[in-house]
Amino acid sequence: MRFKLGCSLAYEVKAPTTFIFNVEVAKLQSLDIARESLTLAPDLARRVYVTPDLKNRYLGVNVQPGPFSLEYNAEVDLAVVRADPATISETPVSELPLDILPFLLPSRFVSSDRLAAFAQAEFGDLPKGHQRVNAICNWIHDNIAYRRGSSDGETTADESLLMRAGVCRDFAHLGAAFCRGLGIPARFVSCYAYGLVPSDFHAVFEAYLDGRWWLFDATRQAHLDGLVRIGIGRDAAEIAFSTPYGEMQPTGMEIRIDRADGGPEPMERTVDAISTEEPAPHAGAA
Amino acid sequence: MRFKLGCSLAYEVKAPTTFIFNVEVAKLQSLDIARESLTLAPDLARRVYVTPDLKNRYLGVNVQPGPFSLEYNAEVDLAVVRADPATISETPVSELPLDILPFLLPSRFVSSDRLAAFAQAEFGDLPKGHQRVNAICNWIHDNIAYRRGSSDGETTADESLLMRAGVCRDFAHLGAAFCRGLGIPARFVSCYAYGLVPSDFHAVFEAYLDGRWWLFDATRQAHLDGLVRIGIGRDAAEIAFSTPYGEMQPTGMEIRIDRADGGPEPMERTVDAISTEEPAPHAGAA
Amino acid sequence: MRFKLGCSLAYEVKAPTTFIFNVEVAKLQSLDIARESLTLAPDLARRVYVTPDLKNRYLGVNVQPGPFSLEYNAEVDLAVVRADPATISETPVSELPLDILPFLLPSRFVSSDRLAAFAQAEFGDLPKGHQRVNAICNWIHDNIAYRRGSSDGETTADESLLMRAGVCRDFAHLGAAFCRGLGIPARFVSCYAYGLVPSDFHAVFEAYLDGRWWLFDATRQAHLDGLVRIGIGRDAAEIAFSTPYGEMQPTGMEIRIDRADGGPEPMERTVDAISTEEPAPHAGAA
Amino acid sequence: MRFKLGCSLAYEVKAPTTFIFNVEVAKLQSLDIARESLTLAPDLARRVYVTPDLKNRYLGVNVQPGPFSLEYNAEVDLAVVRADPATISETPVSELPLDILPFLLPSRFVSSDRLAAFAQAEFGDLPKGHQRVNAICNWIHDNIAYRRGSSDGETTADESLLMRAGVCRDFAHLGAAFCRGLGIPARFVSCYAYGLVPSDFHAVFEAYLDGRWWLFDATRQAHLDGLVRIGIGRDAAEIAFSTPYGEMQPTGMEIRIDRADGGPEPMERTVDAISTEEPAPHAGAA
Repeated sequence: MRFKLGCSLAYEVKAPTTFIFNVEVAKLQSLDIARESLTLAPDLARRVYVTPDLKNRYLGVNVQPGPFSLEYNAEVDLAVVRADPATISETPVSELPLDILPFLLPSRFVSSDRLAAFAQAEFGDLPKGHQRVNAICNWIHDNIAYRRGSSDGETTADESLLMRAGVCRDFAHLGAAFCRGLGIPARFVSCYAYGLVPSDFHAVFEAYLDGRWWLFDATRQAHLDGLVRIGIGRDAAEIAFSTPYGEMQPTGMEIRIDRADGGPEPMERTVDAISTEEPAPHAGAA
Repeated sequence: MRFKLGCSLAYEVKAPTTFIFNVEVAKLQSLDIARESLTLAPDLARRVYVTPDLKNRYLGVNVQPGPFSLEYNAEVDLAVVRADPATISETPVSELPLDILPFLLPSRFVSSDRLAAFAQAEFGDLPKGHQRVNAICNWIHDNIAYRRGSSDGETTADESLLMRAGVCRDFAHLGAAFCRGLGIPARFVSCYAYGLVPSDFHAVFEAYLDGRWWLFDATRQAHLDGLVRIGIGRDAAEIAFSTPYGEMQPTGMEIRIDRADGGPEPMERTVDAISTEEPAPHAGAA
Repeated sequence: MRFKLGCSLAYEVKAPTTFIFNVEVAKLQSLDIARESLTLAPDLARRVYVTPDLKNRYLGVNVQPGPFSLEYNAEVDLAVVRADPATISETPVSELPLDILPFLLPSRFVSSDRLAAFAQAEFGDLPKGHQRVNAICNWIHDNIAYRRGSSDGETTADESLLMRAGVCRDFAHLGAAFCRGLGIPARFVSCYAYGLVPSDFHAVFEAYLDGRWWLFDATRQAHLDGLVRIGIGRDAAEIAFSTPYGEMQPTGMEIRIDRADGGPEPMERTVDAISTEEPAPHAGAA
Repeated sequence: MRFKLGCSLAYEVKAPTTFIFNVEVAKLQSLDIARESLTLAPDLARRVYVTPDLKNRYLGVNVQPGPFSLEYNAEVDLAVVRADPATISETPVSELPLDILPFLLPSRFVSSDRLAAFAQAEFGDLPKGHQRVNAICNWIHDNIAYRRGSSDGETTADESLLMRAGVCRDFAHLGAAFCRGLGIPARFVSCYAYGLVPSDFHAVFEAYLDGRWWLFDATRQAHLDGLVRIGIGRDAAEIAFSTPYGEMQPTGMEIRIDRADGGPEPMERTVDAISTEEPAPHAGAA
């Protein structure tokens, strides 16, 4: 599918501020970038960094006081891998590639060590595979209220569970935490999400099953086959769309994504398992 | 300096267990490995993985029930960079290479977001540079009691601060958290530590100052120029010497390091700033 | 029913220690104390205090280094009030006597403010009354593992929920927290518990329903009509059987309770709602 | 000294709400109430409750949707006990009256168990007595920033310490927590505070020293001999000025206190130790 997408971010900078942005789509094989532009106003010097493993694209800009804005637009072709969920089993820890293992560890907001007992008690006896992670998503969807303003940038997965509320960031953290607590590698994904209303940056998670990363969205708010990846991280800290060091005030923010291929609108919700990552030869694979 | 070092680890495995070990010294330019051997008993299939960026070496082994042991021995030449601490300034965030920035983020045990206010209040007004990080180490040394058994594998830096006690792992987490809270990148280092009594795996931290990573040990228990690196991580989770998935019981553990170059014993404590990493061209440097 | 009960506690005191004991049965109308003795060895000066409202009996003893022991024995007649659970409704907050209201507030270990959302989500829509609190007990019984050593003296109700494990103290804290989170006053009860195997001090909770305090035991390990009250508190902190200030080592502990009226052994489990407190005219009643 | 004081509270009630107010001055011997009035609009039925031990006065009102307001005015004579701080020693735990001991226990917001090690490390070696508690107040004043909006109704003392910020409620919680962590009974006090700018309900704490409760204010914002007590509690939960059960919106709040005896304005800050409680024969005293 082809999408037109982008974002416009505006700030009033009060004191010299270094911004690290992560808003450009990831440099993936599955993601063909037909057109792309990123403009800054004023047009300041840019530093760029693409992480060698995950292909996240970071943009660093040092900004002096005054108004500052970023505009990003891209047109991309997203190729997804589809599979019948019933055919996707779990990969036992004994067979996990070693470079996948960091995604079994607890991280700042995915406090999987604190949630392992809860995960085992709720999901430990369920049939293994894609369906178990789907059951986790169903549980979160049914038990956690999606409520704007219910969390902040320091909220951890265990706190979201206690509060029974959160936003997409928290749903993804909790899903990833339950997975890691069960021995299933899981990672946090930021993306442009087709179908999300109102349009916004979205957060979902991926679980590593049967030799590949599969996408899951416990909020059920967007099309799983319409998620265009920006970044991958252990949790939200690593791939915030904007990390400012300094003093500034956000003054505007608009995120957009539309189909650019004349496909049907509205699109039907897929029931397939969806992956956007080509299985690659892994380091230290069993 | 040349060191002979190694470890012997023994386990009684109760149910099939996948071990991930990180006990071999890192593959660094500054660390010339003259001789090295690692034996497993029984001699099981090994999977190995060296992280591309940090050169941590992970070893994966799937073990059936019964006794299991690992023996590692190496002889290495460690070349350290020395400098006068007074000459080492801080690198402003605006000039930090983008690939360094993840080490400014909070991680599971280095809860720098929860400790930023404390760090600012205690250390925010001190003169910047190597001396400020040294002041952090002095504060930790003077205010946190080194006490075996005072923490466990889930203890976070903020909890260590409240409990005013910890072991080397906690001293390193707290030091790194204070640094990150001040805008100084910091990372967790596991190592063989010459001079540590009783001998054990040791944990220290590195702070990024003036374009290079410098070593700091808030426990003051080992020689800063006698730390032979095993691994680098955001915190202890990533570079545990042994991460077992399964059911087992540790039955023995011995860690050793001695000088192998006829140098003076006991060695004098250095007052230099010490680094073991060559400054490299960084991605996204300012 | 008539019970013979008591306890033997022994300590090795290392440095002068002030003990506060709360092991004597409460001075209740429903509890006729036929015989009672408490001996200390050595026979030190005692300070006693009975709380005016709840009739908890505290005993203070200052002990010098050396062995120290307490032996308590009593024979009591316990009169319980029985009712059909289906007839017991909830008392709306608007009608709660004002002296009951402190038992709606969060306390150190009954972190009902942190658990209110969870309680509302799980139990908010259930039919109100004794059956709702019973449903809470069933949920705890089914979802929290009773496991010795899984908690310590600082474990809070929200932590027990995350860990999905605890002992009687934690079951009572969690039950009380869910109740308070729903607007049902609840308090912590320590007691001698007929039927508990192995015999030990027991902890349950009371909920205020329909103008009276009713007993609940989420562990389901003892006879509800065989609970002989020692103390009432907001949570475990207030009615620890022994609170030592000083330095000492417990060296022995035995708790016992047997029927003393020739009643049937084993007794059948009651399905009645059970209360041991006479409804009294309340201050500030609606 | 004679004071005129009072408060005006206004609410927009959205759904039937039960309010528990604690705004009337306590019924103390040291506090002679010359005149007093409390009006409600609309003039609804009141339930009143005075706690037998501490003489807190609670007022319960059930309110239907619509505007609702409370106005309280009083003229009182406050008799304080003054002493030279240097003459006030600590009471060893072995001599504490048993009815004082609950104020050594941790409570929801005075998490003294989590702060005991910190308290011992910072204040354990200081000379004992009134001066040690004063040193605690100085430390809090110097190390914790007074910042409106930095905390909320769930903030605990250990969190305030980490955040290095709080309001009067948090300063009092932290002071009480440090005291309890050192074995000094401490309790939370709400009051009308002469000299506080801007005028507001104030929170301070009392420590039990030398057989009597002494007032301490770590914020240093009001006159210690101009604090007119409303309530005493383990922490803020017990004596909130307004605890609403229902749905409502505060729409106005004014608190006032002025001298009514022609005494000098501005008053000089006292350096005396101040107590407003007559020493009474205690239950279970040593």
